[in-house]
Parts: sequence; structure tokens; C-alpha cells
Amino acid sequence: MPSYRELNAEELEALKRELEQEFEAVKAKDLNLDMSRGKPSIAQLNLSMEMMDVLHRESDMICDAGIDCRNYGVLDGIQEAKQLLADMMEVPKDNIIIFGNSSLNVMYDMISHAMTHGVMGSTPWAKLDRVKFLCPVPGYDRHFTITEHFGIEMVPVPMTSTGPDMDIVEKLIAEDDTIKGIWCVPKYSNPQGITYSDETVHRFACLKPAAKDFRIYWDNAYGIHHLYDDKQDYLIEIFMECKKEGNPDLVYKFASTSKISFPGSGIAAFAASDANLVEIRKQMRVQTIGHDKVNQLRHARFFGDISGMVQHMRKHAEILRPKFDTVLNTLEKELGGLEIGSWIAPRGGYFISFDAMDGCAKAIVAKAKEAGLVMTDAGATYPYGKDPRDSNIRIAPSYPTLEELRVATEIFVLSVKLVSIDKLLGNL
Amino acid sequence: MPSYRELNAEELEALKRELEQEFEAVKAKDLNLDMSRGKPSIAQLNLSMEMMDVLHRESDMICDAGIDCRNYGVLDGIQEAKQLLADMMEVPKDNIIIFGNSSLNVMYDMISHAMTHGVMGSTPWAKLDRVKFLCPVPGYDRHFTITEHFGIEMVPVPMTSTGPDMDIVEKLIAEDDTIKGIWCVPKYSNPQGITYSDETVHRFACLKPAAKDFRIYWDNAYGIHHLYDDKQDYLIEIFMECKKEGNPDLVYKFASTSKISFPGSGIAAFAASDANLVEIRKQMRVQTIGHDKVNQLRHARFFGDISGMVQHMRKHAEILRPKFDTVLNTLEKELGGLEIGSWIAPRGGYFISFDAMDGCAKAIVAKAKEAGLVMTDAGATYPYGKDPRDSNIRIAPSYPTLEELRVATEIFVLSVKLVSIDKLLGNL
Repeated sequence: MPSYRELNAEELEALKRELEQEFEAVKAKDLNLDMSRGKPSIAQLNLSMEMMDVLHRESDMICDAGIDCRNYGVLDGIQEAKQLLADMMEVPKDNIIIFGNSSLNVMYDMISHAMTHGVMGSTPWAKLDRVKFLCPVPGYDRHFTITEHFGIEMVPVPMTSTGPDMDIVEKLIAEDDTIKGIWCVPKYSNPQGITYSDETVHRFACLKPAAKDFRIYWDNAYGIHHLYDDKQDYLIEIFMECKKEGNPDLVYKFASTSKISFPGSGIAAFAASDANLVEIRKQMRVQTIGHDKVNQLRHARFFGDISGMVQHMRKHAEILRPKFDTVLNTLEKELGGLEIGSWIAPRGGYFISFDAMDGCAKAIVAKAKEAGLVMTDAGATYPYGKDPRDSNIRIAPSYPTLEELRVATEIFVLSVKLVSIDKLLGNL
Repeated sequence: MPSYRELNAEELEALKRELEQEFEAVKAKDLNLDMSRGKPSIAQLNLSMEMMDVLHRESDMICDAGIDCRNYGVLDGIQEAKQLLADMMEVPKDNIIIFGNSSLNVMYDMISHAMTHGVMGSTPWAKLDRVKFLCPVPGYDRHFTITEHFGIEMVPVPMTSTGPDMDIVEKLIAEDDTIKGIWCVPKYSNPQGITYSDETVHRFACLKPAAKDFRIYWDNAYGIHHLYDDKQDYLIEIFMECKKEGNPDLVYKFASTSKISFPGSGIAAFAASDANLVEIRKQMRVQTIGHDKVNQLRHARFFGDISGMVQHMRKHAEILRPKFDTVLNTLEKELGGLEIGSWIAPRGGYFISFDAMDGCAKAIVAKAKEAGLVMTDAGATYPYGKDPRDSNIRIAPSYPTLEELRVATEIFVLSVKLVSIDKLLGNL
């Protein structure tokens, strides 16, 4: 198939009629498919079922430090959970705090705390006229929702193939002391699957922000979520890098086991410098007596140690890999060379990012919906839901079965083709 | 034994020498006892161990609505958990939200949200010059810590035998629109074990606050935590009472299963009017994808329904009752008639509140510590840790074994006697 750009109006119209027939045929099937969220599949959930069987007797409930995990106490997490998550996050055990079931909630709390109390003694952000965050785009919608909720102005920074455009990041944060943070998903990024290069991470560690209360909000959600055994991305560990560069307090690291054990019932963790942790613990002490230690213990016992967790991630990869391959192969086969869209084949994470022709993303998502396929809202990967080029679409292949995914991707490429033809014909 | 007040200096000195010998003897035992926190005992924790055995197979993980509890989703709680907690809190199921493991965290979040976003459209409290809370005293230290953390000015209101002094409450909140809330533990109150009378609850429901964003923070932590089968306090349900009086939005209700199942791993719930819940859900949607549904399901399956939960509470009472009786009998036997302290025998909850002679509480707690007994810090039951009369001491009999409790109470009464003698002799 030649590029759509080389076809004349007549040829495009003819192609459109043909594709519309195909589309009507699939629409008639009255399907109900969902590629909207990065939700693990049932097969993936079943990988962790033995977790339900590790705690039974009274003696099981006592952690290494001799503490009964059922009772009150232990504000920042039991030692074995700290060790496990510290190894997963590649930071020292003493620089970890274990939280509840949601790292998103931890991020929310950090921003909320900065609003009311500032960061390590700075003016509470709620008392400032203006607070801004840098947002690499496309990015994770739930990050943007948090900053928007608190009235923080979001400044988009374009992603490159090596991470956010660091020339822009360095310049903006050096000049503007109202910029208090940047959202990062540094490995297998959401939605592009890009891993920040060594140079990018190093430049992050060397940042010289005008605002003393500027922090890098480093959401390493997919740190060990590889798709392949033989080709994996490698990310430099930023906390130690910041320390080396004399900026130990610059980074807040977030992670969780949501896509390792159970999405609704994992454990979240936060890592930062001693000085940052002193402040966080002070706030936590007001907020709670402690998070769910039984669930912490359950995780520690089930995984054993980091190598158990890495083994476990191989099983996830075996389930996810054919799904990503199905989508990628169909995109290549059906859209390759047509010049109506581009995408990145990720080596890990949960998403495939698709860039349609400018001005087509909303229409494609709407078209897919007509045939019963729910995609992430177009624009969701941009602050305020506004993709200036109306081009980016996030594909989440994890939840549907392989069979569903084949049909879903078929609907998706049909929608891309139909909308693109309309665009080329000047109908959009 | 006659009242200490009738003894002359010489008699007091003689008594002091005698008691000091007893004190030195117990001190020599080098004990390590703790009556400081309302922490359930190991025997109580063991009552819920079968909870570890209710979820095993894949099919176990699906809740009544057909949703897989292991995965993301269900923002405000699964139906069966809502039903159980709604029955426990005596509110309609649709007026409940299920949270994580800590109702304290929910209270913190409500205040934090009001600071940054106001309450149902009011000015964010962080933007006001002055925000005040009424604090019935003595009260729960962790409530006071939250309000203090957010710079909210605390106004003490004296407790009476029927609840907070409602004449004062009504007058203050009608006049002063900077008063935004009142902390209440309405049943078996912390620390006095007082249950608000029907009239008190009714007057709460009829409040006419000057501030539109005033809420009653109703922490019904001990709603079903009776000590006796045959003598139980009854508390009118305030949510319906407010509705009847045309004030549906006036109250926020909090509760949890922390002292029903496991203190560190229970489930918390929040109840309020539809309009309040709309606002809370809007905030929650930003904060999290959802709380731990597996733990919600575990609780629903273990307790079955409210009658299962009430049965379960009888077992707690059987363990707690002899402990309370031990302390109360010793207080009566050793201090009765001496006129150096008074206390209330509660019918439920976790505490016995002791009022020493004015100016003696700190000294008594310090004295007990000398002999290896840790009590709650004197003053903790007052805002800013300042008991103006230095009189109130909270006794928490739940955690120690009966044998430990006998010794602990012996140390306590010895400390009360010795400090009181010093006070009467003018040495304090």
C-alpha cells in the first residue's frame, strides 16, 4: 500500500467506501472492548494469588523486628518491606518510607503538604500568587490532575527520545522561582515507553533551580516492568546521582507494587534524602498511626527478596509481551508506510503511544467508540486535557485478552485510516 | 482510711515514708509496663485471625457486584463493605465511603482539603486570617494534633456528664464565623467514657453556625465497643437527626474497624450527606484510584453482617472487662474516700479518665515512670498538651495482661498517693 499522501481525492474516496464497509461490519458485532487504562489482566492477577496464603497463624504475623504487624505502630514501614522496596527502587533501606496501597496518593499528599506547609520551611504554596510545575508531554494524566486540582499552573515541556528536553528544563527552572516541580516517569514512560538517557538523568541531578523548594517528582512506576529478557532499558539511579552532585534533597522518588502484585492492594513507597524524610515523617505522624503492616508483611513474605520479585516480573512479561506484539504487528502491517501515523515500540511499561496526523486524535477516539472500543480520551496525555496538535493517543494493551486485542486493534487502525482520509480530503 | 485532707502534716509525713518504702520495693523490680495507648491486646488480635483464611482462590476475589477486587477501580468502596460499615454506623449504605486503614487519616484529609479548597465552595481556610475549632476537653490528643498542625486555633469547651457544655457550644458557633468545626467522640468518649445524652445530640443537630462551612467532626470510634452485656450506653444517630432538623450537611461521621479487627489493618469509613459526598468523591478521584478492596472484601466475608460483628465485639468485651474491673477495683480500694482523685467507670471504649488534685498530673505520670510504668503524657488530653489545671490523666488498660495490669495499677495508685501528699504538704 502506498502512502495515503500520494493518493488523489478520487482514490481516497474509493478507499474510504471500502473501509467504511469493513467498519460497518465490525460495528455490527456490537462489541465492548477497552484499551483505555493500564490495567493488568486477570491472568496477571492470578500470578500473585499465593500471596493470600502466606499469613495464617499468630506466629506468622510477627515481623523480623519482633513486632506484631496486626497492631498499631511502626509509622514508616516494617524493615523487610523497606528492604524489598529499597532494592526495587535502588536506594538505601533507610531512605525509604512504606505507605498504603497507592503511590498516587503519596504524590497527592506531597503536593497537598507543600500547599499548606511548604517544603522544608519554605512559604506554603497556598500563600503564593503563582506556583508552576513543568510537565513533560505527552505524560501521565493523573499527575496533571493533581497539579490542576491544587491550582498549580502547568508548563508543558516536550519529550524527546532521551527524555524531557533538558535545555528547556534547565533554562526554565534556573530563571523562574515560581516553578516548584517537574513530573517525571523516567522509565518506560507513560505513554511513550521512553527511558531517560544517562545524560538526561545526570542533567536532572545537576539542576540548579531558582526555587529552593523545587523538587523532581520522580514516579518510577515501571522500574522493573520489562517486556523482554534480551532487550531492556537501563535507567541511572537518580537519588545517588543527586547526592554525588551535591543536591541530595532535589528528588522525591515514588514507586509501588500495584503492577507487580495487585493493583488495588499493593504497597507504595517513597524515597528521598534524610532531610526530606524528617519532614515527611513529621507530617505522617499527624496523619496516621501507621499504614497496613499486615499487607507489607504479606508482600515481603511472598516475594522473599528482590530476586524473587524480578522472577515474578518475568511471568508478567510473558503475559504482556504477546499483547504488545499483537498491537505493534498490526500497526506495522496496517499502517506502515501510509504516513498517517507514527508510534514507538516500547521495551517495557504499559503503553504504546500513537501520534496521528495533526487534528485527528479526538476524531479517531470517537470513531473507535462507535464500534465499541474505548480508548483513553484524546488529549488526556496533556495538561488540562489539551493536546495542542490533537495528535497523541495512548494505547493500553494489557487488560483485553489476546483475541479481544486483535479485534480492538483492527477497529483502531480502521478508525485511524477513515479519519485520516477525511483529514486529507479536507473534511475535518 | 480517712481522707488525706483530714491528716495533719505529721501524719502525712509518716504515711509518705511508709508509701515510699512500698514504692522503692516495686521500683526495684525494674518493670517495663505501658498503660499509655488504647492498643488492643494480643488476645484481642487473635479473635480475628480467621480473617486471614477467607480469601484464597480466584473466585474468592470477586465481590457481589462481580468486580475483581484485586484490580484497580471502585473509588468509594465495594457494596458489601459499605453495607457492613453503614450498619455499624447506623446510616444508609449510600451515604458511606470506605477508605484505607485509618479513620484518623480520613479526618486529616478532610481538614487538609478544607485548608486548600474550603468546604462546599467556601473560601479555602488557608486563605483566612483565622480559623478556630472547638475542642471538648478532656479529649483525644490526635484530634488536637491535626488541628494544631494546620495552624487552627483550638478553643476548649468543658465536657459535662452528658457531653460538651452545649450552652457554650451553641453560643460560640452562633456568634463566631471563624469557628469551622468541633471534634467529638460521642460515645464512650476518649478519655472519659462519656456518651452524649439524647438532648446533647439533638442540640448538635439543631446548631445554627455562623460559618456556612462549619461541620461537626463526629468520630464515633467506640460505637459498638461495649464492656458489658447488661449495661450499655445508647447514642442517638446524629446524621438522621441533622436531616430531620433540616441540617443534612452539618455532620461528618468517622469510624473504623481498627479496634474490631486489626488496629493496623482495618478499614475506615466516612458518612455524610449526599452533597458532602459529592465534594469528597471529587477530591478522592484526584487522590487515588481506589483503596484496598481486597481488605474490604476480607472484612465483609469474615464478619458476614452487622450481627456477626456485634457477636465479635462480645468476645472483645470478655477480654477487656476484667481489665477495666481490675483497674477500677484497685482505684476504688486504694483511693476511695481519700479525696485525692476522682474517676469515671465507663461502660465501653478504651479508657479510664482520672482527675488528680490540681497541679499533680504531670508529677504523677513522672513518678509512675520512675517505677517503669508509662502513662499517656499528662496534658495530652488538652489542646497544645496544656491542661490548665494539670489534673487529667488517661489510663489505657487494654494492652497489658491482667497480671501486668495489677502491678501497673498498684504503681499508679502509689504515685497518686505520694504526689498528693507532697501537694498537701505544700512541697509541689
